[in-house]
Amino acid sequence: MPLWARIKLDDDIRIGIVDGDVIHLHEGDLFGTSAPTGRSIGLDEAQFLTPTQPTKMVALWNNYRAAAEKNGWAVPAEPLYFIKTPNAFAAHRQPIRPPRTFDGRVVYEGELGVVIGKRCSGVAIDDAVDFIFGYTCINDMTAPELLTRDAAFAQWTRAKNFDGFGPFGPVVATDVDPMTLVVRTLVNGRERQNYRCDDMIFRPAELVSRLSQDMTLEPGDVIACGTSLGVLPIRPGTTVEVAIDGVGLLSNTYG
Amino acid sequence: MPLWARIKLDDDIRIGIVDGDVIHLHEGDLFGTSAPTGRSIGLDEAQFLTPTQPTKMVALWNNYRAAAEKNGWAVPAEPLYFIKTPNAFAAHRQPIRPPRTFDGRVVYEGELGVVIGKRCSGVAIDDAVDFIFGYTCINDMTAPELLTRDAAFAQWTRAKNFDGFGPFGPVVATDVDPMTLVVRTLVNGRERQNYRCDDMIFRPAELVSRLSQDMTLEPGDVIACGTSLGVLPIRPGTTVEVAIDGVGLLSNTYG
Repeated sequence: MPLWARIKLDDDIRIGIVDGDVIHLHEGDLFGTSAPTGRSIGLDEAQFLTPTQPTKMVALWNNYRAAAEKNGWAVPAEPLYFIKTPNAFAAHRQPIRPPRTFDGRVVYEGELGVVIGKRCSGVAIDDAVDFIFGYTCINDMTAPELLTRDAAFAQWTRAKNFDGFGPFGPVVATDVDPMTLVVRTLVNGRERQNYRCDDMIFRPAELVSRLSQDMTLEPGDVIACGTSLGVLPIRPGTTVEVAIDGVGLLSNTYG
Repeated sequence: MPLWARIKLDDDIRIGIVDGDVIHLHEGDLFGTSAPTGRSIGLDEAQFLTPTQPTKMVALWNNYRAAAEKNGWAVPAEPLYFIKTPNAFAAHRQPIRPPRTFDGRVVYEGELGVVIGKRCSGVAIDDAVDFIFGYTCINDMTAPELLTRDAAFAQWTRAKNFDGFGPFGPVVATDVDPMTLVVRTLVNGRERQNYRCDDMIFRPAELVSRLSQDMTLEPGDVIACGTSLGVLPIRPGTTVEVAIDGVGLLSNTYG
């Protein structure tokens, strides 16, 4: 179950596999062929980058049965999605600054991310798994008041895309079964979300297949599978950790 | 008033300046320094690429007074925007295929595009013009029925981001005053849109300033300024031309 990281080291960008408290550096391409360099560095000294550089992050709304039930949302007939743009991406341990021009509520949303490994267009659900490179942790940060501030237009893009509002990582875990995973979100160390991925409405393979009918997905693109119960506002100074056993722990401080 | 194009030539990607019916090739960086190579090629033989490679296209809704008035929309208090993603970008003359899994109405929307020239974050309105590289033509293609198909979630992202639904180009015109421009859209040669850019609610410099407070804008990123009256459905086989005198004529056939 390799855990692939991308790090900055001596002004170079390197890839490597996390193994306990070290990263074994590799040469090559995350989505092609790669080989160990023989060099390792300590996890503590690693400057993490986002594990991939997506052209887009496609993010699901209303994709967990428990959240739909609690919020009184109908189970959707098709995946409902918005976009997180590259300016929103942030790495493990990177501080997230509050927006400049919005001082309302900001919430975390711990989520499972599906990382695409091969260009993918119009694939059948049974073939979709071949296009999945692995899984990662996402904090889909959101300024929810923007969704209702203009009566005529729900500002999903703005609410979701302030600089840094889409941290993901620290790694991509390959060879995991997403239906066995549990997403936990810790807010200043206190567990606030704890939900099973098998409560998803549209599961990773179906998401890849259905989204790929609409939009070509590129290697490194990420699908954020949506969140479940336990979303709460955070104040500046708060540390949010999205922890998925078998995948990783993404930690960012807001403020 | 240079008109910058990006083209594919002998499997290389080249930049150049359009001058009458030729393109004078340049070496260097569109957003840095460049110099003529001395070589020119005919416009007819040029294989156009999108003039830039945006990390995102930020697209305005409800940004023209005439359209707001006719549709009964309130003039917005702040720019209201959605995203067009890289899979949607298409070049001048590139055919646009109908979506695979949606057979409802598809409409064109001829628009002025603002092309960012320098990384831009939190800039004042008076400084914003320094971050604008130039202007281009956009067809903001849309599947409007998706906005209302799910009662709980307006599918702006999906409606706007089928592969190829964001053609732009053929060039970026620098040194033009956007407030003097007129956007015309020709559908199979028949003029269907003809509106003045000075009817815009949030103008280019204000858009750059306000959006840059939310999201860092990168060189090559594009702001689609929204459309005005005259949006209509198109059928497969239709050629749509977005013509802005002083900027260019973007032509794509849908189907």
